[in-house]
Amino acid sequence: MNEILAGLHARKSVRAFSGEPVTPQEKRAILEAACAAPTAGNQQLYTILDITDPALKDRLAETCDHQPFIAGAPVVLIFCADCQKWYDAYRAAGCAPRRPGAGDLMLAVTDCAVAAQNAVTAAESLGIGSCYIGDIMEQCRIHRTLLALPDYVFPAVMLVLGRPTQQQKARPKPGRCGLKHIVHENGYRRMDTGELRQMLAWKAEERPYADWLRAFCDRKYDSGFSREMTRSVEEYLSSFRGGGSSYP
Amino acid sequence: MNEILAGLHARKSVRAFSGEPVTPQEKRAILEAACAAPTAGNQQLYTILDITDPALKDRLAETCDHQPFIAGAPVVLIFCADCQKWYDAYRAAGCAPRRPGAGDLMLAVTDCAVAAQNAVTAAESLGIGSCYIGDIMEQCRIHRTLLALPDYVFPAVMLVLGRPTQQQKARPKPGRCGLKHIVHENGYRRMDTGELRQMLAWKAEERPYADWLRAFCDRKYDSGFSREMTRSVEEYLSSFRGGGSSYP
Repeated sequence: MNEILAGLHARKSVRAFSGEPVTPQEKRAILEAACAAPTAGNQQLYTILDITDPALKDRLAETCDHQPFIAGAPVVLIFCADCQKWYDAYRAAGCAPRRPGAGDLMLAVTDCAVAAQNAVTAAESLGIGSCYIGDIMEQCRIHRTLLALPDYVFPAVMLVLGRPTQQQKARPKPGRCGLKHIVHENGYRRMDTGELRQMLAWKAEERPYADWLRAFCDRKYDSGFSREMTRSVEEYLSSFRGGGSSYP
Repeated sequence: MNEILAGLHARKSVRAFSGEPVTPQEKRAILEAACAAPTAGNQQLYTILDITDPALKDRLAETCDHQPFIAGAPVVLIFCADCQKWYDAYRAAGCAPRRPGAGDLMLAVTDCAVAAQNAVTAAESLGIGSCYIGDIMEQCRIHRTLLALPDYVFPAVMLVLGRPTQQQKARPKPGRCGLKHIVHENGYRRMDTGELRQMLAWKAEERPYADWLRAFCDRKYDSGFSREMTRSVEEYLSSFRGGGSSYP
């Protein structure tokens, strides 16, 4: 296994940071690696918010499902799916473009995540750990105000970065499901109860599978933050509705 | 710059493949690197379709905006945002979960793109080039049938991979916009006409900026494939509408 593959396999989420700073040069290298990522039509359909204000970090630690470690992260980056900037540029150049639609948003969201993952890989290569915070998609109204987001900008991905504590370095990386359940050949294979159990049962560890899965469902999927995520994303999406076909 | 950063900067899209095959071991290494990527709650909210059937590649080359090079790619992977498998597993375990909603979909889409970018980085480290095909989001009905996708599975990202031809290796990587326009501090800064022009004008090369931008708008944003993408994504989204709050 080459050094790059080894780095991808070694990387795990870091949620506790040592006091050691991330230097401006390191932060710049991380941001430049993000921007070197593949991007649809070389459009860079993202804007990266670099959150440096401690009070704003504190606020995000609250609004992103009350996760105090966010406030302590040396670097906090929010990758916004940006369908505003090109739309504004087109209008300024005298075009009469259609309004951005759900497809534009989805393409920009994938651009964001692809760029963010380059940032993660770059950081890892510099000894800097990272954690994705999906909760940035929640609380649409609060985050729109807090981050000054116009209608066609959606905060798709948040990353917190910093040097891991010893305890974080020692923590084993969680396992993954068997490849045969994740990779399907030539079409989607809807898995039956037996295969779903085979794919997931190792996660239950010592507990009965159904007990573990019911508890996981309550904690993750049927949780308040998860419902809030869908409510909030629906609210963001409403700006994009019908954007594919209508003209200003 | 370390080897990993250099790899991220060197990677560029490859759309023409030499005859040299990608070995099964290499494909497996690429898929394992994808699955080693960060994933929300370690849920791996994706299913990767490995398209090996030449007839299916031919069909996708047509349905994905008529791009013949897709048919010639040794490896074609479709990363599907999968909100079906956990939902099915929850129900099989006796939970009464809410239906998947737009937030679940968006989280799964970011999971897909993050995993796909690990695949890209892994491939690059093995001398294998790649290209993202956003057009897989188009043609909802055709792709649902072709790939046997249930309601809660969305084909978010397609990657084609193979060894680059000499001509592709020699092609320079396209530049990126200045970091100062992409990275905003502590909040979104809506760019004025002057800054938008400053960010984009280098792309026009020899042409007058406004001419270039109007042509780009027609070719990319106000194009048929782009409208089709939004229409199709709206169609996929309709399965997820109201999923955050309703019960079966």
